Amino acid sequence: MTADSRFADLTTPSLLLDEAKMMRNIDRLADHARALGVSLRPHLKTAKSIDVARRLLPGGDGPATVSTLAEAEAFFAAGVSDILYAVGIAPQKLPRVLALRASGCDLSVILDNAAQAKEVAKASRETGDPVPVLIEIDSDGHRGGLRPDDPLLIQIGRILHEGGAELRGVMTHAGESYTVAGNEAHAKFAEIERAAAVAGAEALREANLPCPVVSVGSTPTAHAARDLTGVTELRAGVYVFFDLVMAGIGVCRQDDIALSVLTTVIGHQNDRGWILVDAGWMAMSRDRGTSSQALDQGYGVVCDDAGNILHDLVLSSANQEHGIITRRSGAPASMPDLPVGTHLRILPNHACATAAQHAHFTVIPAKPDNAIVEWPRFGGW
Amino acid sequence: MTADSRFADLTTPSLLLDEAKMMRNIDRLADHARALGVSLRPHLKTAKSIDVARRLLPGGDGPATVSTLAEAEAFFAAGVSDILYAVGIAPQKLPRVLALRASGCDLSVILDNAAQAKEVAKASRETGDPVPVLIEIDSDGHRGGLRPDDPLLIQIGRILHEGGAELRGVMTHAGESYTVAGNEAHAKFAEIERAAAVAGAEALREANLPCPVVSVGSTPTAHAARDLTGVTELRAGVYVFFDLVMAGIGVCRQDDIALSVLTTVIGHQNDRGWILVDAGWMAMSRDRGTSSQALDQGYGVVCDDAGNILHDLVLSSANQEHGIITRRSGAPASMPDLPVGTHLRILPNHACATAAQHAHFTVIPAKPDNAIVEWPRFGGW
Repeated sequence: MTADSRFADLTTPSLLLDEAKMMRNIDRLADHARALGVSLRPHLKTAKSIDVARRLLPGGDGPATVSTLAEAEAFFAAGVSDILYAVGIAPQKLPRVLALRASGCDLSVILDNAAQAKEVAKASRETGDPVPVLIEIDSDGHRGGLRPDDPLLIQIGRILHEGGAELRGVMTHAGESYTVAGNEAHAKFAEIERAAAVAGAEALREANLPCPVVSVGSTPTAHAARDLTGVTELRAGVYVFFDLVMAGIGVCRQDDIALSVLTTVIGHQNDRGWILVDAGWMAMSRDRGTSSQALDQGYGVVCDDAGNILHDLVLSSANQEHGIITRRSGAPASMPDLPVGTHLRILPNHACATAAQHAHFTVIPAKPDNAIVEWPRFGGW
Repeated sequence: MTADSRFADLTTPSLLLDEAKMMRNIDRLADHARALGVSLRPHLKTAKSIDVARRLLPGGDGPATVSTLAEAEAFFAAGVSDILYAVGIAPQKLPRVLALRASGCDLSVILDNAAQAKEVAKASRETGDPVPVLIEIDSDGHRGGLRPDDPLLIQIGRILHEGGAELRGVMTHAGESYTVAGNEAHAKFAEIERAAAVAGAEALREANLPCPVVSVGSTPTAHAARDLTGVTELRAGVYVFFDLVMAGIGVCRQDDIALSVLTTVIGHQNDRGWILVDAGWMAMSRDRGTSSQALDQGYGVVCDDAGNILHDLVLSSANQEHGIITRRSGAPASMPDLPVGTHLRILPNHACATAAQHAHFTVIPAKPDNAIVEWPRFGGW
């Protein structure tokens, strides 16, 4: 019932990771960052895996970006010591930040308002540990951050610098780059990120405030950036695995996607052109990121168990533990013969969301003779 | 920064469970099933928690429904011994089914095609253990199952009964009942479920096949059913917690929702009318189940930390670890004063999906003087 005998004993659904594809994706952006002359600070929020981090961080100790303090704690315990926590700091979280720093982790935080800055400065003074801070710059109206010409930027810089914290620099993230397609469009957003971050850095420096770090990045802009003059580091996360959203805007090919969900056919409704499988939204996540793209991929693109895309088949709807595969067109005619028990793979819309539904990666090793192994993942906050 | 001092030390985001509301929801459907004269077989796929199961199953040992074999194994280890695995059986999963049965679990499976029936019959013969099977009936075109007048129903019944399995009955689930609102509409779907399941049972009995169990249910139909003549048991799951989708179709009030996500304000974009919080889609899930309802609740309805709904505020968009709260209307005017550090609660669209993002419930005990406790949850397959 499966062409790949290594999958015969796997539970379905399972989250498959193609190590060879992952390594190619890792090398591609590392090479690009090197050519641009900037440091690469990978975001570990997609992987949440020590095994992936070891392959992603050549020195083993960083630099890295995280989205939760649980990630910071887990990766620090595994030897990663240069970590940016890239979600605006909640004052209640400062004790955990300080505890990590007291253990030897060079953990930095981000913020965009005076209330946060005062709390970080106060905690820095009280502990005698100047917490390093990047001020968040809003380059594209996506979510948080200050416009680089906002007078608050200088005010916050002073609160930090004069209040006992370490003003380490500025950072921005062009989340809106996900909404446009093609290298030209992403290159424009890369320049928007660069220009906003550099302008923020210059405004701080003109006010005699320090700003050694200028940090930018998103997966689309990181790959498309052509000139990062004034930038010191690049951040990106989902590029390690890629997904249908990234393929849909031309950052990668579908064949570069290193993650898929292995599933089993459990039934058919032939008159409706439906194939039922045991991967529903619990295995795929509810992410429908391609629904706003030129080609809606439903809950994912269907491949055979070797990873070959089955033309025009998508996981068009999902209940908790049931998925329904149809032709993208919806036409019930000429469905391929995929009997009960057949293993299939589904490429995900959004690697971060799909991976989060699983407690481990089932790794197809880069060396084809090696056995399949499991790499644990973690979650939580 | 928080009105409820019991929340002061909680990490945010955290999944809060109001035990008193949960117990009222549990009692409500138990009373209704008793009045209808049917057994209640709660679905544990929403809870995935031994502590919740203990409060939900009065005898402790069942009956219960599960959506994965991982649930069956975990709940059986905790003493639940009468379990229906209500996703069409994949042949590869039969060894785990048989292992559970060999350990003393009365685990039954469902199926809707001859290929599955032959595999179950074969496994039953080979082990000398007649695996109990409910044949899935399609009552509303929602996903799997056979129409009750499909000749395949009898054919499959014979494969099972004559092949060594235990033909235990029929089951159906009116998943389409979620798409309509109001008790009258749900009552009609309850009758559609009843009529289809009873017709399937009668067809089997007329063919001299056994059919002791006639199982129906979904949360909307279970609450609206008025007469279940011919039905032996009722299944429902999300009713234990309820959610905005159920409130949106009138099965409960928003005030009945026992789950919420505690979050912290981390910033503002005042000119856009945005409040940024640390609950994004990782904490809420990507479920947008209210987007197709009369009132779209975004990623959830915003409450203060005591659970009082803040009029017209919704979590209107979500990144991985960021949520953006706005007025439902989108108007930036007259936003309430919710400074950085304020704790809020977000009611979820879909309890199953939101709970799945969390490793434990943070339980607000029914007795107000009791301390907050954690109940672990599990996932996986």
